[in-house]
Amino acid sequence: MPPRYLSFRCSVPWLLLLLQTLFLIRSFFGFPAVGDVYSPSNFYPEFQDVNHMVIFGFGFFLLVLRRYGFSSTGFNFLLIVLGVQCSVLVEDCLFFSLSFLSCSLAKAVVSMTAVVISTGAVLGKANPVQLIVMTLVELIFFYVSRCINRTFLQVPEHLALMHVHLFGAYFGLAVSSCFPEPPPGLDKNRSTPKSELFSLLGTVFVWVFWPSFNSILADSKKKAVLNTYLALAVSAVAAFMLSALTSKDGKFRMAHIHSAVLAGGVTVSYTAPSIQHPWIAMILGLLGTVITILGSHCLQRCFNPALKLQDTSGVHFTFGLPAVLGAVAAVVLCVVEKGIAKQWNDLSSLGYLIFVDVGAFCQTICTALVTGLITGLILNIKLLKAVHVSKYFDDQFYWEVSFKMISD
Amino acid sequence: MPPRYLSFRCSVPWLLLLLQTLFLIRSFFGFPAVGDVYSPSNFYPEFQDVNHMVIFGFGFFLLVLRRYGFSSTGFNFLLIVLGVQCSVLVEDCLFFSLSFLSCSLAKAVVSMTAVVISTGAVLGKANPVQLIVMTLVELIFFYVSRCINRTFLQVPEHLALMHVHLFGAYFGLAVSSCFPEPPPGLDKNRSTPKSELFSLLGTVFVWVFWPSFNSILADSKKKAVLNTYLALAVSAVAAFMLSALTSKDGKFRMAHIHSAVLAGGVTVSYTAPSIQHPWIAMILGLLGTVITILGSHCLQRCFNPALKLQDTSGVHFTFGLPAVLGAVAAVVLCVVEKGIAKQWNDLSSLGYLIFVDVGAFCQTICTALVTGLITGLILNIKLLKAVHVSKYFDDQFYWEVSFKMISD
Amino acid sequence: MPPRYLSFRCSVPWLLLLLQTLFLIRSFFGFPAVGDVYSPSNFYPEFQDVNHMVIFGFGFFLLVLRRYGFSSTGFNFLLIVLGVQCSVLVEDCLFFSLSFLSCSLAKAVVSMTAVVISTGAVLGKANPVQLIVMTLVELIFFYVSRCINRTFLQVPEHLALMHVHLFGAYFGLAVSSCFPEPPPGLDKNRSTPKSELFSLLGTVFVWVFWPSFNSILADSKKKAVLNTYLALAVSAVAAFMLSALTSKDGKFRMAHIHSAVLAGGVTVSYTAPSIQHPWIAMILGLLGTVITILGSHCLQRCFNPALKLQDTSGVHFTFGLPAVLGAVAAVVLCVVEKGIAKQWNDLSSLGYLIFVDVGAFCQTICTALVTGLITGLILNIKLLKAVHVSKYFDDQFYWEVSFKMISD
Repeated sequence: MPPRYLSFRCSVPWLLLLLQTLFLIRSFFGFPAVGDVYSPSNFYPEFQDVNHMVIFGFGFFLLVLRRYGFSSTGFNFLLIVLGVQCSVLVEDCLFFSLSFLSCSLAKAVVSMTAVVISTGAVLGKANPVQLIVMTLVELIFFYVSRCINRTFLQVPEHLALMHVHLFGAYFGLAVSSCFPEPPPGLDKNRSTPKSELFSLLGTVFVWVFWPSFNSILADSKKKAVLNTYLALAVSAVAAFMLSALTSKDGKFRMAHIHSAVLAGGVTVSYTAPSIQHPWIAMILGLLGTVITILGSHCLQRCFNPALKLQDTSGVHFTFGLPAVLGAVAAVVLCVVEKGIAKQWNDLSSLGYLIFVDVGAFCQTICTALVTGLITGLILNIKLLKAVHVSKYFDDQFYWEVSFKMISD
Repeated sequence: MPPRYLSFRCSVPWLLLLLQTLFLIRSFFGFPAVGDVYSPSNFYPEFQDVNHMVIFGFGFFLLVLRRYGFSSTGFNFLLIVLGVQCSVLVEDCLFFSLSFLSCSLAKAVVSMTAVVISTGAVLGKANPVQLIVMTLVELIFFYVSRCINRTFLQVPEHLALMHVHLFGAYFGLAVSSCFPEPPPGLDKNRSTPKSELFSLLGTVFVWVFWPSFNSILADSKKKAVLNTYLALAVSAVAAFMLSALTSKDGKFRMAHIHSAVLAGGVTVSYTAPSIQHPWIAMILGLLGTVITILGSHCLQRCFNPALKLQDTSGVHFTFGLPAVLGAVAAVVLCVVEKGIAKQWNDLSSLGYLIFVDVGAFCQTICTALVTGLITGLILNIKLLKAVHVSKYFDDQFYWEVSFKMISD
Repeated sequence: MPPRYLSFRCSVPWLLLLLQTLFLIRSFFGFPAVGDVYSPSNFYPEFQDVNHMVIFGFGFFLLVLRRYGFSSTGFNFLLIVLGVQCSVLVEDCLFFSLSFLSCSLAKAVVSMTAVVISTGAVLGKANPVQLIVMTLVELIFFYVSRCINRTFLQVPEHLALMHVHLFGAYFGLAVSSCFPEPPPGLDKNRSTPKSELFSLLGTVFVWVFWPSFNSILADSKKKAVLNTYLALAVSAVAAFMLSALTSKDGKFRMAHIHSAVLAGGVTVSYTAPSIQHPWIAMILGLLGTVITILGSHCLQRCFNPALKLQDTSGVHFTFGLPAVLGAVAAVVLCVVEKGIAKQWNDLSSLGYLIFVDVGAFCQTICTALVTGLITGLILNIKLLKAVHVSKYFDDQFYWEVSFKMISD
């Protein structure tokens, strides 16, 4: 169907041009001169790690589908460079005087992780126009959700940003529920050993940089790095253990490793800078992996078919469930610590603490689900030219690839 | 033709041995004890980034040709380790007392970028002997060109080094013009989806490290990082935009992405540490991409066939044109800034400024073109055993590869 | 033989669970609160480099065998996350009060390099249970060997740790001598061009990070980085030179590049922080490569067949021989330096110095060989279910791979 091909020429470039012009105008009028606002250089190595992880690592990590390699890496890259600009400007725009110093590139890159996670849920199903719209809408809603957390619930800035996994996963799930399911016979969403090997390398790559991600905005970087490292290590051991336990013949399954080794890092993302005893981080890492592997079995067999969800990269159990666990653990740990400190006398202030933390958590999930659903509905209007299900998971739609790809 | 194979045994190893012995003797006699001259550790993370980018990143970036992967990565590696030693010794040798502290590894690695870029122009056409000779000659000429800029035109050291893209691209072009063209039917210089995927990953990798490259020798690293990052981001968005606009059916073309996402970084390489307003960097990034994409269309259709040039990796539009734009932009920005500061009163000093900057720029290009042409002629003398055109772009000439490569 | 498949389900997960529980209990009882003991953040960039190199780089580096990619990368990852936890606890456990501050993650990761090297010797032959047991046993014995060196021979901590290459290589060799040889017709241990390309990229990756590895625990990081870089550069040039000299037709052989470019880094690992003149480091790099390339020819033709050794990744000549050379060079350099300083008057103290250094070296090799042999015998008892030789080098045993792998 040639008109569908042609349509992208009339939409993608102009959409990109429009956005880029807006960013330029915004930066022309509103941006302060460099050197006043930004200070990326004193934590440049950490920023560089996170930047490297999000752009290169996730592009590598998403190389699962056998015919969707160009789009996985290429679109991930496009969305991040677009989103980082948008994010810097959104923050700057709404909260100029208050968050003067907070308006940094590092936060923009961390925020973009939400979009990268959501993209994983609709990987291979959304066309570039849909992905670009989704990126902008999600960044704005995530910003609003963070503002609510920060303003009304007094959640500190770096904790509010760590809701990025939770928000990204549930937003992505809600969006993907609005996309039609691919036909059962379609085998383009299979992985091949080659694509799985790439994906394993990408997973290991992201794993290595996760401590930098969890510590970049934390106050006590030292503790954050150590706790994250230990949680990740336990998580990886547990992933191999549970994979061999739950799969046929006791073999390791690559999909388990792919999704579960990062669970520990996601789980301790809220608490890494504050955990006092390493064994707590290690247990959280273990629980994160357990919930991911169990979740992957339950969700893929019961939950997803029932709700007609199709979560391509499994972001629900890779990022969503461990983030829920981490948020609950953060509340429990905070309450226990405060309770012990005050010998359980001041129960009303403890109750308030629980109320605030649970409130922030519920608010984030609800916002993600509701706005995700709305975004999903918007994305499927006629204007955005959704791809037909038979054309899912195929690079040929978006890239000029030589015919050899087909026989590959 | 077996004698041609055997010839490398009689040339490459002995050439390498000779050079390595020279370097050893030089380092024995002339090198000061460690600790006096070098200070790489205070900026070790940045140095490590640049080193990583040039050796691993460019090795990855050059993996475009389907049968030339070993040579692309392997020779890039060989030339860099050879060139860095040579570069450290050349600097040391000629300018010992003056540039005492400047004689550092970081500069050597940055200088090597010129050679890496030139190599891209003759990728698959030059044999190892030719590449090694080219590396040495180019490093020496680049050093001479920098000395002229520094001594006669008073260009600061770090700006003189940033002519590395300009020099590398035009030197490479001039060299490649002396090589015979491959026959039209040869399909070994095609890329495959696999090699393009590798190349995309390599491009993203190099993109991530470009801010480190532009800031390593700058005074105000903070500004250099930020401006480069923004220019690169705009550049990447524009690359996707223009690729969809100019290609058939509105699809993205990998070659565009490959060459244009880095254009922004090259364009701001001169001005990144001094630009005061982020929007200027963003506009330079945009213009860099525009000139790259337009250049790739014009050059490949009109200019290259007319001049019988064959620029394998397209270094002319990937590095050459954005560097020209960047040099022009540097002059304009400098003049405007100085002019505003002095309210356009002191026009003669402005004129002198323009003369100096344009002079440095013209001198660099002319030196690159002339010395490149001479080098190209030297490389094609009988002694260096140029490869026959039918054997271009083939790993089998230089590496012991199993037969499976052929059917791959 | 299905029972053999099933067996891993009954062993691997429970073994991992047991170990992880032990680590958790140990960390619960014995670990001090975070912030007292650890200080990884002040040298975080270096730690991150080494971590990245050992986990991602070596996983990449080991991708040589054409049907063993998942296991090479995956098991390397599993063993490191397991070993790092074990290593932190072992150090903590035995030497709590003395080595209070030394008990750091960085040391644990460096120690794990010994295991990674040993794993290379039995790559494709040991099943996961055997690998896990080997990891634990090796870490404990390496720790004991270091304690002997430190306590009885007064070797400084960071030099004792640098015996990691020596210990790893000879331990691995001794272990691999207990494994039955694969049948001559087996071609699964061949490499393909694709796997060799991956392996080349991995080698370049590890090369880039080697200066960080050698300098992480050194006092004078500046000198360590510079000397290592120069030694590595000379080593890489020499590797290309000797490869072209010794191979048929003067072509480069990937196996040579793979093993010899790192030789310089291994050779100067003991002496990098103390060498005063760069030319010494450069000559050591050259000698390291010479011994590696000559060693690879001699060992593979004479020594290995005679002793019925099968060293899959060639760790003997890649890490073993250069480490021996480095240890000898360290003694010579130390004696010459001390001798010159005291004008060769105090010969008895020089003799004592030689005795101590040679003692540490011999003790390390002997411990590695003896304990490796014992470990090898233990690994081949019935309980650990050694893999049959016909099933060597095959991912299908341990991973759920789709049938396409077979035809690949």
